[in-house]
Amino acid sequence: MNASPVRFALTFAVLQTLLTGAVEAWANDMMLADAQQKITRAGARASVTGSTENFTGQVRVEPVWSVDENSNVSGGLVSFEPGARSAWHTHPAGQRLVVISGVGLTQEWGKPVQQIRPGDVIWCPPGVKHWHGAAPNSPMTHLAVTGTVNGKNVSWMEKVTDEQYDAR
Amino acid sequence: MNASPVRFALTFAVLQTLLTGAVEAWANDMMLADAQQKITRAGARASVTGSTENFTGQVRVEPVWSVDENSNVSGGLVSFEPGARSAWHTHPAGQRLVVISGVGLTQEWGKPVQQIRPGDVIWCPPGVKHWHGAAPNSPMTHLAVTGTVNGKNVSWMEKVTDEQYDAR
Repeated sequence: MNASPVRFALTFAVLQTLLTGAVEAWANDMMLADAQQKITRAGARASVTGSTENFTGQVRVEPVWSVDENSNVSGGLVSFEPGARSAWHTHPAGQRLVVISGVGLTQEWGKPVQQIRPGDVIWCPPGVKHWHGAAPNSPMTHLAVTGTVNGKNVSWMEKVTDEQYDAR
Repeated sequence: MNASPVRFALTFAVLQTLLTGAVEAWANDMMLADAQQKITRAGARASVTGSTENFTGQVRVEPVWSVDENSNVSGGLVSFEPGARSAWHTHPAGQRLVVISGVGLTQEWGKPVQQIRPGDVIWCPPGVKHWHGAAPNSPMTHLAVTGTVNGKNVSWMEKVTDEQYDAR
């Protein structure tokens, strides 16, 4: 081996070390820059209208957070106008509802309709067929905290008929 | 081999099969019995007073759900009387706060105190030092959705001084 390849190899090793260090420092800076409290304000998040295929009446769905490396459940606020409700459905990894305002109704298939009020928390296990929505004369908003299996968090079924909704 | 051990072995095998079947059926029944909507009502969940070591003022902590096979985050309602607040702390897997009622304050270390109101959602990434609590003249309740690392979801630090609290 003569001097030239050795000098080249050494220079390359030094450059590689410096570059790796620089990239690591940059990555750390990016992580630190990202590692700060983030406040999303009420009224400043995008929301969508619940589809007429999966909901009856006027429903607004506001995604709040997504599944990520820190949480295997997503969170969303869902607001139902009086009389509005979801279709029958199941969740592959279950769902928790935290009622925030108004008065709502929920029902598990084959069981009675139940009234839900602010502070009530409803756990629906994986695969259990049910619906939820507002009471006939009150709006209702809940936070929905929902698990995911293979990117899917709900399986939609048939609509809740007026007869089913009014059964209470 | 004579007839007796063979008969014994056969009888044992049959008994074992029957018993295994019975245990499996019982386990399935238990699972089915468990797989139903569960509503925990506002006011019907146990709650504890926030410890004077980790909180200033009157704080009530109401666990709502635990980490389980469906969710790697727990949920709890925390209610602060006016002026009450947490000590400085970090979360190993981060925490989301969903403000439910009242007016609150939060601060990340080295940054300004910020007011938080119902519907605001605060994401605090892993390892970021911060505090949260009520505003001086209003109570505040938030849902806290918190990740866990090795069974731990918070690292407590020093109290928030009146000077820090009043800095806004």
